[in-house]
Amino acid sequence: MTDRRPEETGMSATDPHRQTAGPDPHRARPGRIMAGEMAEQPAVLHRILTEGAPAIRRTAEAIAARRPRFVLFAARGTSDNAALYAKYLVEVELGRPAGLASMSTTTAYGAEPDLTDCLFVAVSQSGGSPDLVASAEAARRAGAVTLAVTNNPSSPLAAACEFHVDVLAGEEKALPATKTYTAELLALYLLVQGLRGRDGTAAAAALPELAARVLDRRDEVRELAGRYRFAQRLVLTSRGYGYPTAREAALKLMETTYIPATPFSGADLLHGPLAMVDNVSPVIAIVPDGRGGRALRPVLDRLRGRGADLVVLGPREQVEAASAGFVLPPGVPEELQPVLEILPLQRLAYEVTVARGQDPDAPRALAKVTETH
Amino acid sequence: MTDRRPEETGMSATDPHRQTAGPDPHRARPGRIMAGEMAEQPAVLHRILTEGAPAIRRTAEAIAARRPRFVLFAARGTSDNAALYAKYLVEVELGRPAGLASMSTTTAYGAEPDLTDCLFVAVSQSGGSPDLVASAEAARRAGAVTLAVTNNPSSPLAAACEFHVDVLAGEEKALPATKTYTAELLALYLLVQGLRGRDGTAAAAALPELAARVLDRRDEVRELAGRYRFAQRLVLTSRGYGYPTAREAALKLMETTYIPATPFSGADLLHGPLAMVDNVSPVIAIVPDGRGGRALRPVLDRLRGRGADLVVLGPREQVEAASAGFVLPPGVPEELQPVLEILPLQRLAYEVTVARGQDPDAPRALAKVTETH
Repeated sequence: MTDRRPEETGMSATDPHRQTAGPDPHRARPGRIMAGEMAEQPAVLHRILTEGAPAIRRTAEAIAARRPRFVLFAARGTSDNAALYAKYLVEVELGRPAGLASMSTTTAYGAEPDLTDCLFVAVSQSGGSPDLVASAEAARRAGAVTLAVTNNPSSPLAAACEFHVDVLAGEEKALPATKTYTAELLALYLLVQGLRGRDGTAAAAALPELAARVLDRRDEVRELAGRYRFAQRLVLTSRGYGYPTAREAALKLMETTYIPATPFSGADLLHGPLAMVDNVSPVIAIVPDGRGGRALRPVLDRLRGRGADLVVLGPREQVEAASAGFVLPPGVPEELQPVLEILPLQRLAYEVTVARGQDPDAPRALAKVTETH
Repeated sequence: MTDRRPEETGMSATDPHRQTAGPDPHRARPGRIMAGEMAEQPAVLHRILTEGAPAIRRTAEAIAARRPRFVLFAARGTSDNAALYAKYLVEVELGRPAGLASMSTTTAYGAEPDLTDCLFVAVSQSGGSPDLVASAEAARRAGAVTLAVTNNPSSPLAAACEFHVDVLAGEEKALPATKTYTAELLALYLLVQGLRGRDGTAAAAALPELAARVLDRRDEVRELAGRYRFAQRLVLTSRGYGYPTAREAALKLMETTYIPATPFSGADLLHGPLAMVDNVSPVIAIVPDGRGGRALRPVLDRLRGRGADLVVLGPREQVEAASAGFVLPPGVPEELQPVLEILPLQRLAYEVTVARGQDPDAPRALAKVTETH
């Protein structure tokens, strides 16, 4: 936590948290490391599309030649949300059934399912979590094609798997993961396109510039943050490709602000937890511009009908029908929107944390590489 | 909500909520329907083991003859937690990879993955949710062996699938599902044993009697409930076979008490949300007596080290090392413990709800058959 970035790209000179460095600049400027890494995201996306894409394409071709019929993802925390996004891509775009592995079945119970014809994809920022390494080793022994998607090509996880994709995010120092999440999303998108024999770089080419423009709209996010400064709870909801965003935003809010933030798919919200909403629990809805957003509309109608405080991230007309929101740029393919959707929500977690007098760079009790067994 | 049960099996005469029926007995006795259905659980478990088991065994044999290599579960709400339990059983006991289907990939995005060699298991109390029916129909077209596990053999879902298992819980009238959850757990246990060519009834034979004894310990649960009457939030955690219990208990607490109750696998809790715990967020840990419980111990140590208020459901020595708890009966195979673990937690949701002056039978905004598309 004592390492410091040389500059804070993207922090404006009028940022109220910018202060002259004193004897302990880390304490004096809460969230400096997280803010710097959030601001790096356009450059990281650009790097993946230019430097990373050819290697991802070659890896995907080698895996496709093995003709996997079933895809299993294994991940924890933020990377688990990236894996869920990839699961949707595999089912919708690749047309293969997919699942999220329950690692404890291997690490605690010694399960050894037959994984012939399976592709096992382990996603991890650090590539260092022992349970993930053990699961990948077990999957390889059980006959799976194994792939590690990490931010560290020299990690134990990369060594344990037959294939590796480097998400090229550069070292991540902040405890709340931001740039590695969007890097994992884009790398997994390119991977799945490659498994289909396609090149995804053209469809994704506008993302770095669009991400930069979304990140520039800090004032809008700061205004939204005022709404949650004293919130006791939050509900996040979405459907389809936006659901991993709801989960990742909830995790980011919980680990920085400590507000209990509960994510639900719109369908699950109607199956019980809707009772928890009302005017006591503000709702943040991520509304994809496309089929996921259309599937979410009955849920939004119910929420509005119940008088819920509803903040929408999505297309302009959906934001205008809500209590407040953040308009996302139009014209992006639905399956790539998650790369942009999370950006204002990462910033929201940052701003609410700062407003509550806490430091986003120093969540209580967290270590960067979490050693679960 | 106007139907009434003829008697309240298992409600003791000294129950403080028992009152003389007035002009509106439902309002006068909050939670009467839920309490009655919780009390039916030993009889339902007994019915499954005697009347249900032979048919489940025959269905399992017919499915096993088709040699499925992957298992996909589809469910919502409480049934999704039963499906997660079955996913652990399939991975650990059957040795097959398994996943939980993301239904929106089919219903919103029209995904048509190739499901040759897949067993698709749809779990639903009512068998009436349109998205589940559509997913099952799509899976059957895509080549999967399809099985519906429901409480209604004449439901659209049962009709849409090639095979059906009836969980025999009797009509469920309370909005919070209780007896159908434990019925689904036991039916899925017997199914997976049957897929392995085994008969699970002997291992499960003690469950009805043990369930009745656990349900009799209402005073212990009422004492625990006092702890949460004014809680603003709750965290639930477990690992392995106990994790579905943590999720189901959180759902039950949220839909009845409206307290935001967040479930985490012990491993995921260490990857971020631990910052949310401390003395502000009480923790309920379900500690399996076996390998899942051993894998959870480092998490419990961290929680105790952080001064968390920790209530444990599990073996006596784990309860005694916690702030408070509920001792579960020893000698039950770990994979069957979830059938008992949830019972005091259902009752806890009931008692906290009553203590907060709300009616467990009438959560705001809920309908019994949730029509998600």
